[in-house]
Amino acid sequence: MTLLSGHIFKGGNWWLVACFQLLSFFVQAQGDPLPSWNNSAVKESIIRFVSAVTNGQSSGYVPPEDRIATFDNDGTLWAEKPVIQELFVVFRINQLVAKTPALRNKQPYKAVLEKNRAYLKAMGRNGLLDLMNITHTGMTETDFREAVRLFFDNARHPVLGVPIAQLVYQPQLELLEYLKNNQFKIYICSGGTVEFIRAISWKYYGIPPEQVIGSTFHYAYVDSARVNDIMLLKGLYQLNDQKEKPVNIQYFIGKRPILACGNIGGGGDISMLRFCQGSQYPSLQLLVHHDDDEREFAYEEDDNESLNNAHRYGWGVISMKNDWQHIFVDAVP
Amino acid sequence: MTLLSGHIFKGGNWWLVACFQLLSFFVQAQGDPLPSWNNSAVKESIIRFVSAVTNGQSSGYVPPEDRIATFDNDGTLWAEKPVIQELFVVFRINQLVAKTPALRNKQPYKAVLEKNRAYLKAMGRNGLLDLMNITHTGMTETDFREAVRLFFDNARHPVLGVPIAQLVYQPQLELLEYLKNNQFKIYICSGGTVEFIRAISWKYYGIPPEQVIGSTFHYAYVDSARVNDIMLLKGLYQLNDQKEKPVNIQYFIGKRPILACGNIGGGGDISMLRFCQGSQYPSLQLLVHHDDDEREFAYEEDDNESLNNAHRYGWGVISMKNDWQHIFVDAVP
Repeated sequence: MTLLSGHIFKGGNWWLVACFQLLSFFVQAQGDPLPSWNNSAVKESIIRFVSAVTNGQSSGYVPPEDRIATFDNDGTLWAEKPVIQELFVVFRINQLVAKTPALRNKQPYKAVLEKNRAYLKAMGRNGLLDLMNITHTGMTETDFREAVRLFFDNARHPVLGVPIAQLVYQPQLELLEYLKNNQFKIYICSGGTVEFIRAISWKYYGIPPEQVIGSTFHYAYVDSARVNDIMLLKGLYQLNDQKEKPVNIQYFIGKRPILACGNIGGGGDISMLRFCQGSQYPSLQLLVHHDDDEREFAYEEDDNESLNNAHRYGWGVISMKNDWQHIFVDAVP
Repeated sequence: MTLLSGHIFKGGNWWLVACFQLLSFFVQAQGDPLPSWNNSAVKESIIRFVSAVTNGQSSGYVPPEDRIATFDNDGTLWAEKPVIQELFVVFRINQLVAKTPALRNKQPYKAVLEKNRAYLKAMGRNGLLDLMNITHTGMTETDFREAVRLFFDNARHPVLGVPIAQLVYQPQLELLEYLKNNQFKIYICSGGTVEFIRAISWKYYGIPPEQVIGSTFHYAYVDSARVNDIMLLKGLYQLNDQKEKPVNIQYFIGKRPILACGNIGGGGDISMLRFCQGSQYPSLQLLVHHDDDEREFAYEEDDNESLNNAHRYGWGVISMKNDWQHIFVDAVP
């Protein structure tokens, strides 16, 4: 081969050299698993990590069955200004008022319809839970699924004016695909309620519904002459946020993730990343930083808790501004 | 080919015919996915069902992602006389007494060590829950996992004298394998606690730990200078039995099983089978009937509720005596 190459490249066969260089360029371009990521330190750390855990000769090798990754959803896989599930609450209030017009003048329906933020804010935590109960419970799982389907078929972002599917981050889709191609099993681990996310997890992210962990209401199984279904009941059964994320990962998976990705915003993912970091295997922690006011939104935490933890524990911080070439999904499913 | 075949089989080439028949026999034998099952109606119904849901031309076709199967564990995948987790309670009591000998004279340790059934029975439900708390909680998930590993490495069935791995039903292993080969995703859905089953789900059944749904205690995530782990706390968080089985299937999977298999004994699987039967797809419900006093055990329910439901709703009843050629696993993992 050396002889042959020598023969080809000697004697001024410049067009052959050019062809080989072009070919090499295309192979490299094809070979980049994260084309919407800039070639920065965080991208490099991801590729280095995945290469190490999948290399049977590496001391950091992790068997495929233990390649668990957990991703937060709001602000990590899609935009969270406003939280999409809040738009669903408004959609459901409109549905309920359409069915029972008298509700229009009753609270909290009235405040939601009139976008009375002061009233809604004054309701406090219990008032918000009431609003969730009204819009998410008191029906069968089948009926709820249908309501969610209708919502996603029609809803648009109130500011950006695009369908919800358009709010998914393209670089993250590439990361999910890259991990799947390397035999990672990926779970969403979100503060949103589980049925809501399950409705779109496969279509938007290629993640099966059974790999979604979320907050849940109380359920009851009803088997009667008329109904054979799960009833969604009032009251949160599990709130999947902060320290409850590791707890629910243990309930649902029983294995620690070796890669966990959340975002800076409400401090909700710190415990999930710390739990990941306690793995017996090498592990990678990532936090999306919303620092791109031009292409998306810019916001931080008042107390900087997520960023402080990132610095303290050596987590990767993904700057949307500097690390992502594109923000939103190229092709809507 | 017809001409050739005609040529070969004509003219008294009886030895060639015999060879072909022998070959055909081996092919058929190799092709039987359930060799430890007798060729009975229930085996036929299983094969007919799997053939229909996997046949793209069939009206009963089910896409792979919706081929969910749920299996009870105790009495369905392995023997339940006594319930294996009860043996673990005894093992843990011995562990605790070895560490703190003074406990030997304290209740309920004393009653367990002396096998004082009258005392244990008189403790009632709360007493039993106390015993579970003492033996299953107050430690990290990592330490619990180690205790379970030690138990399974050493425990033997008190009557049959065999290792626990030997109590798995061979025909069910073949059924699990058959379903997996037909792209079913199989979950264990058991009244046993989830960490206990997860310790052996892959080794004994080829089912990944994250596909085990069970009862659970309360958990808390602790992240301190000394500990980064899930603490197992006192008190049941979810009891996965009867009507809670569909509820937890909804929490964990968010899809109805199209095949559900339980056993006759405590009526614990009726709701899971009814939930399965409410699927939008064709579905199959199976109940293992312990009617083989010679090779295993024979027991029924006082009120016959499982059998009555089987008759009412057309569920398949697996007679261990008549439908299974072998009972226990051929080769211990």
